[in-house]
Amino acid sequence: MDQMLPAGFRFAGIHCGIKPSKLDLALIVANDPTCAFGVYTQNLVRAACIDWNRSITPSRNLRAIVINSGNANACTGDSGRRDNLEMAELVAKELGNAEAKQIAVLSTGVIGQALPMAKLRAGIPEAVRVLSNQQSAFDRASKSILTTDKGPKTEFRNFNVGGRSFSLAAMGKGAGMIGPNMATMLGFIVTDFPVPFAVGQSILKQAVDLSFNRISVEGHTSTNDGVILLTPNRTTEVESSPQSISEFQAILNDLCCSVAKKIPTDGEGASHLIHITIAGAASDSDADRIARTIALSNLVKTAVSGADPNWGRIVSAAGYAGVSMEVSRTSLSINGLQVFANGTPTKFNARDVSDSIRHNFNTDIHLCVGAGPGSAQHWTSDLTADYVKLNAEYTT
Amino acid sequence: MDQMLPAGFRFAGIHCGIKPSKLDLALIVANDPTCAFGVYTQNLVRAACIDWNRSITPSRNLRAIVINSGNANACTGDSGRRDNLEMAELVAKELGNAEAKQIAVLSTGVIGQALPMAKLRAGIPEAVRVLSNQQSAFDRASKSILTTDKGPKTEFRNFNVGGRSFSLAAMGKGAGMIGPNMATMLGFIVTDFPVPFAVGQSILKQAVDLSFNRISVEGHTSTNDGVILLTPNRTTEVESSPQSISEFQAILNDLCCSVAKKIPTDGEGASHLIHITIAGAASDSDADRIARTIALSNLVKTAVSGADPNWGRIVSAAGYAGVSMEVSRTSLSINGLQVFANGTPTKFNARDVSDSIRHNFNTDIHLCVGAGPGSAQHWTSDLTADYVKLNAEYTT
Repeated sequence: MDQMLPAGFRFAGIHCGIKPSKLDLALIVANDPTCAFGVYTQNLVRAACIDWNRSITPSRNLRAIVINSGNANACTGDSGRRDNLEMAELVAKELGNAEAKQIAVLSTGVIGQALPMAKLRAGIPEAVRVLSNQQSAFDRASKSILTTDKGPKTEFRNFNVGGRSFSLAAMGKGAGMIGPNMATMLGFIVTDFPVPFAVGQSILKQAVDLSFNRISVEGHTSTNDGVILLTPNRTTEVESSPQSISEFQAILNDLCCSVAKKIPTDGEGASHLIHITIAGAASDSDADRIARTIALSNLVKTAVSGADPNWGRIVSAAGYAGVSMEVSRTSLSINGLQVFANGTPTKFNARDVSDSIRHNFNTDIHLCVGAGPGSAQHWTSDLTADYVKLNAEYTT
Repeated sequence: MDQMLPAGFRFAGIHCGIKPSKLDLALIVANDPTCAFGVYTQNLVRAACIDWNRSITPSRNLRAIVINSGNANACTGDSGRRDNLEMAELVAKELGNAEAKQIAVLSTGVIGQALPMAKLRAGIPEAVRVLSNQQSAFDRASKSILTTDKGPKTEFRNFNVGGRSFSLAAMGKGAGMIGPNMATMLGFIVTDFPVPFAVGQSILKQAVDLSFNRISVEGHTSTNDGVILLTPNRTTEVESSPQSISEFQAILNDLCCSVAKKIPTDGEGASHLIHITIAGAASDSDADRIARTIALSNLVKTAVSGADPNWGRIVSAAGYAGVSMEVSRTSLSINGLQVFANGTPTKFNARDVSDSIRHNFNTDIHLCVGAGPGSAQHWTSDLTADYVKLNAEYTT
């Protein structure tokens, strides 16, 4: 699998003691100063690391990303900002020939508690010592960024553009506090494809809009979400051509969708991945609002977890999305079985629908709300008693 | 208790067979043609009864409201509209000297199934036969409108205006599919206070905005919600005076708030009533959006059910409400214990906060988001494993 990783990067994942026993500190280091593009949470209540990253990306000379899990360093005021800066300074010092502003920082975990800086002062030098370009190091880094996730979320692509071969590697994190309003969760993507600096941010934004922004678990936008793309700081004419960029965009979109879908798949307590497709809306953005409204309905999510063919909850959720729909031209299928056609229930077999939900991890909801050109997709998890149990006992 | 009921109305509640064994058909009949004002769901996917009631209210000569539970007659197309009209016609015929358009109809229950009209054709005459002005009849009606509610939700007021005594009586219904975007749930209010027709609708609207529109269970706006106020069709100068109307408005607001709060109190699976107060926002409507966003966060609702003092979930929910807030001037108290002051965590005792949640049915959340003049209140239920269980198995 080693050939899947792009050249030019090293990785580390260690346990520094923020969590009782699991891996909790990761480094992604570029061997040469690298281009970095970031998309961050829209929450007004932002962690110190988000403000920091916003101030240093896009960048032409990023050196590293340091990520800790187990503590979000959010709602921690001025001392949180100082701690965040110290994390960047510690990494810069250990790497050598670097400044703090070349180090991106992401924190994830409990809100409102001070970072245990003594553990980071010991952990960061240790992480730098074990940096490696091997797959095993990438894998340990991908585990170190997790919180309530059941497992790592990685994706790799090898591809050719303009007769040359390149690689993409991505790691994601997220199982709770996953809301659909901007770059939810954490995502880190490295590639040896030299994206022209001028278009890097818009390329990442498009990929995130079609992937990480189309997923949810419970719709609670986090204080700490961020997706960062690292690309080499050099381009040739071939890679700068519209054709090459377009090819790279398609591969990046596909990669991001694959990582993003793993998040609701591993959503806290999830027993189903719900794939919602909306068609016939007045516009794509109207379709998107309908998809999100359905995805955030606890009544829809509990119906799926119980394999209850309670399709009225889906249609009624569309009705309060705040955009237009034509009820008399509205039709709904669940797992390919049509239950509602042009505003009237079909004579479907409720047991067939129920069985199709019960016996599959994936539930497909296809809702057509009229004759308009707008469509959208969204992926979410169902809502189970395990979700409630997990989140009722998170900090206590 | 009989003296609590306003004169001029009769009530009935029977079992007609829509549900297996519980009461499922109610009548509220005015002895004389009465003024009726209604506020209805904003959902575009509306039950037949909602369109019907919208077409006949406000009215100066309503005769009755017929309510069935166990079947919402929503998403039922043209046949649903015919069934709804037949319900009104049956009531008009049995009462005599009445037309269908003098009969309001409300249905609540499962979406997308045809009403069992044979049962209603037998049940409506039976309900008319047992009409009575006694408290016991009112109580049976208040039970007949319930679905997953654990019990009836009634409130009564005796009051004096202009030296004369009047009464208000209200019954509410709602335990699930309770969303905060307009007149959620069912509410029926009768009074012998003769509200001037010209102001009746705005009086009801204000009362609903401050009560039924400030509550939620899971935020799913129903297809069938409606609140109807019946008042005598006559006024004198005394009752038409701004002073009298203002006094009545205050009493009606208080009554509606009392009924409305009973809905999340009895929210499906609820173990806590959460009372959210927002202050310091730029405007009342901004404060309202923050309150609703917190109320709809599953992470906040599960934290309360688990008595987890996870206050970061509350502050971060405010941050994605889509309105401005000043994090550095934001402060939060839970049950009177301050946990966050001017953007920084306080040194609070987590066990005290947890105990205060665990040992009380009511949880008070008081969030100040700046120095603005805007404030709002909202009441919601917590999210428990019982909620999930109840809603995973609703129709199957």
